[in-house]
Amino acid sequence: MSDLLIPRTPSAYDYPLLIKNMLLYPVVDNPNQEIVYRDLYRGNYRQLRERVARAASMLTSLGVRPGQTVAVMDWDSHRYLELFFAVPMIGAVLHTINVRLSPEQILYTIDHAEDDVLLVNAEFLPILEQIRGRIDNVRTYILISDEEAKDDDTVPFAGEYEELLAKAAPVFDFPDLDENTRATTFYTTGTTGMPKGVYFSHRQLVLHTMALMTTLGTATAHGCLHRDDVYMPITPMFHVHAWGVPYIATMMGLKQVYPGRYLPETLLELKEKEGATFSHCVPTILHMMLKHPHAARMDLSGWKLIIGGAALSRNLCVEALKAGMDVFTGYGMSETCPILTISQLTPEMLELSHAEQADIRCKTGLTLPLVDLRVVDAELNELPRDGVSAGNVVVRSPWLTQGYLKDHKASERLWVGGYLHTGDVAVRDELGYLRITDRSKDVIKVAGEWVSSLELEDIIAHHPAVAEVAVIGKADEKWGERPLALVVPKPSVKITEKDISHHVRQYADKGVVSKQVVLVKVKFVDAIDKTSVGKINKVALRVKYLG
Amino acid sequence: MSDLLIPRTPSAYDYPLLIKNMLLYPVVDNPNQEIVYRDLYRGNYRQLRERVARAASMLTSLGVRPGQTVAVMDWDSHRYLELFFAVPMIGAVLHTINVRLSPEQILYTIDHAEDDVLLVNAEFLPILEQIRGRIDNVRTYILISDEEAKDDDTVPFAGEYEELLAKAAPVFDFPDLDENTRATTFYTTGTTGMPKGVYFSHRQLVLHTMALMTTLGTATAHGCLHRDDVYMPITPMFHVHAWGVPYIATMMGLKQVYPGRYLPETLLELKEKEGATFSHCVPTILHMMLKHPHAARMDLSGWKLIIGGAALSRNLCVEALKAGMDVFTGYGMSETCPILTISQLTPEMLELSHAEQADIRCKTGLTLPLVDLRVVDAELNELPRDGVSAGNVVVRSPWLTQGYLKDHKASERLWVGGYLHTGDVAVRDELGYLRITDRSKDVIKVAGEWVSSLELEDIIAHHPAVAEVAVIGKADEKWGERPLALVVPKPSVKITEKDISHHVRQYADKGVVSKQVVLVKVKFVDAIDKTSVGKINKVALRVKYLG
Repeated sequence: MSDLLIPRTPSAYDYPLLIKNMLLYPVVDNPNQEIVYRDLYRGNYRQLRERVARAASMLTSLGVRPGQTVAVMDWDSHRYLELFFAVPMIGAVLHTINVRLSPEQILYTIDHAEDDVLLVNAEFLPILEQIRGRIDNVRTYILISDEEAKDDDTVPFAGEYEELLAKAAPVFDFPDLDENTRATTFYTTGTTGMPKGVYFSHRQLVLHTMALMTTLGTATAHGCLHRDDVYMPITPMFHVHAWGVPYIATMMGLKQVYPGRYLPETLLELKEKEGATFSHCVPTILHMMLKHPHAARMDLSGWKLIIGGAALSRNLCVEALKAGMDVFTGYGMSETCPILTISQLTPEMLELSHAEQADIRCKTGLTLPLVDLRVVDAELNELPRDGVSAGNVVVRSPWLTQGYLKDHKASERLWVGGYLHTGDVAVRDELGYLRITDRSKDVIKVAGEWVSSLELEDIIAHHPAVAEVAVIGKADEKWGERPLALVVPKPSVKITEKDISHHVRQYADKGVVSKQVVLVKVKFVDAIDKTSVGKINKVALRVKYLG
Repeated sequence: MSDLLIPRTPSAYDYPLLIKNMLLYPVVDNPNQEIVYRDLYRGNYRQLRERVARAASMLTSLGVRPGQTVAVMDWDSHRYLELFFAVPMIGAVLHTINVRLSPEQILYTIDHAEDDVLLVNAEFLPILEQIRGRIDNVRTYILISDEEAKDDDTVPFAGEYEELLAKAAPVFDFPDLDENTRATTFYTTGTTGMPKGVYFSHRQLVLHTMALMTTLGTATAHGCLHRDDVYMPITPMFHVHAWGVPYIATMMGLKQVYPGRYLPETLLELKEKEGATFSHCVPTILHMMLKHPHAARMDLSGWKLIIGGAALSRNLCVEALKAGMDVFTGYGMSETCPILTISQLTPEMLELSHAEQADIRCKTGLTLPLVDLRVVDAELNELPRDGVSAGNVVVRSPWLTQGYLKDHKASERLWVGGYLHTGDVAVRDELGYLRITDRSKDVIKVAGEWVSSLELEDIIAHHPAVAEVAVIGKADEKWGERPLALVVPKPSVKITEKDISHHVRQYADKGVVSKQVVLVKVKFVDAIDKTSVGKINKVALRVKYLG
């Protein structure tokens, strides 16, 4: 085999794909391009370079060595961006801690990831104080503070980030690394069991960046990211690298705006003041922004938003389109770096009405280049691309976690048969557009037929009196399982189980959904349990309402 | 070290960067998108997929095995595009023969590359007939013909391409390969010695494609390639993969138009008829197209052209801009896959006059992502980015030939010190724009000072009576070397050596160029010798006028 490979003369440089090389693009050396953090920091790209070098010097002088893990608890900030580069570039692993987990879960991930250093925003000191006595592995704590550095007797901080940076050397000779060196790690907020650690290499992050950049770049008018855009993340940087877009924005030399904690008012103010044109968020935040009083008097047109993390409903999509926003779905998960598909529209599709466009924009979309995504049966045979054959979504691409950290069994389950199993069920149409119909473990089997809880949720959500809904499967002697709809009614509206049943039956009668749905039972509730990232927590709901 | 790398669970798929994976993008499965060859073929992307599979079946059934070499002699065609994919995808090596070389040189490259199969367009049979008796290694000949298949007794063809394709199986299970498998090879048309073979792996071609796609994609209004563009190559496919753009165009699902042999009239007709909006060519072809009578009555506006292979002159650039074309320079060479830099302009620069823009568009431009290009002194120290410090251009990127085929000495010279030496001399400005000032071997040393022959050629070309000019160094007892300008005057114009000297002196007097240039001697000639790719052949000129 080896004589088939390209010969390399001894002096030739065999170029590895490293995060440091993403900074080689000349636009990354632009002193006039801004990086903004709320109203607290306004720097440029030359400063970014220098601050990345200073952060590397700081960490090294605190004893951080290749292979060690540096953990961060912060909201979205210029500091986080600097650490996205500096930590992997010295050969260490960046652990982006999900600050929305419970203190016990955070403790678990700090311990499991074997963090050596922890940078923590002062805002999270109350959490840290609850668990610090039980943290064994962290050697060094660094305080992050937006205000004057605090005195905190309970944690022996090596110093405050800005102060340490000011003292650190402004240049750093970043080493060459094996491109398969681990660069980042973080924990999935699965709905079952303890969080699981995923991890990504330098090569994987470079390739994810390049592929997403080509997908967004080559689009002409909609769903595009070009060099005149202004970027503001609205998916946390601790959550799957903020979908990888901070790396792209940096490589493109875009103006970047970091909003700290996500408060709808702050987000809208920053959008207006700094001219953000490209963001990404979960439907909940989009909903909150659209409902905020500021939104009504603002010009939101041309704001491009990738929506992901949960299904975008047609209603919300149409509402956003009416406001002039360019919303479109992205699909992926913690295990996949994350982006696998984007629902960009063709020029012909852009001629359609908002409602018709929403049908496409709410689909999961087309795969990125190099993504080998298949909808398969139980034997991994690909199903027809006919828009109706539903199957499990499995995938190969250059940027998938190669296992779960220190969990051989779950790793093998994830990769059984050589494909990563997303756990999602989907159909694919002739043009290749994917539409997720369910989580495989969420499917409800009624009278021997699959009923999609997502589809049923979508139907019930269309009822004008329904604020929120979740559907789970309830064991039934006669039918095997029956769907149980947990419904939060809108305030001061009257609604009965009969209204819902009648509403659902109309869809079944029209044949747009299998007739098993009429077996739905309804329970009115005050609220629906969510996971730390805002997804419906079906596990908790099952315990609560079926247990 | 290995514990720093990402762990891989046994079942995980370690995704290689392979040419076959560039076809995974769903837009590559579009039955409505066209691939056109002159007025002789009009197919779509589904047919491309099938024809690639058929070509693979055909080659395999003719006995082609991984590691063997398949050579092609054809003009730009849909067939060549199919072979760009099919040959590497079966693990074989695609040798793109430069049909502009002399028959003896072609024989040398067929022999040196150890070609096993040769596909040859009927147009080149006269060349083949001259050398076939001396070809030892080729086992199988395949005829390519735009007309009815010919009977040719002198070459024992296995068949004609279309006929063999029709008989071959329409599906092929393309194997996974090591990403460092050799995919392509071809020969540099250097001006010294015999042609040298360069070679590129699957990984290198995928990464070159992705990087060029991000550079062209993320541009907003000028110098961009988006999904609504129509591509027509005007740099031969045998010349450094037509700059890699056929791979990009395919991955983007663009309409593609292949023009066969480059005749200005055909090119302009195809541009108009098929709506081409993106091309690339050498200055000579741009010049020929602009001067063609068709051009005057055509709308050339919005036609994006990367110009490379030779320096774009300011005059030609301004002329193209006036015609509404978006011309900009690309830089690279056979050894570099080829693209290293592109001279895209910022929105502010696009506000400048044509003449001012031309200054930037004729520069060599900014590097692509992941390209580590340096202007260095003899000790490989980087020179200041001040727009005046001239030095050697050395480079690292993920897509550089790792040596010359079977030439250890030249390979080590190319890569001395771990950087690929381009042999070019350049300056770089504060924004990172590179400007090639000379070939290092072309510099003329006058009275101890370097004189750039390119600069002097540029000055003399500005004289209204000069049609073409080449400058070489002539040994001189007093000055060491003096520039000798070989000048082709415009027809029916009177011009003397004194006119040229006076013209040159004006530039020296203004201080825009070192005063040594006034020592230029002038010789009026009828034509200037060119290499097979249209560059000035300084070696031949030196032999002719100094020998």
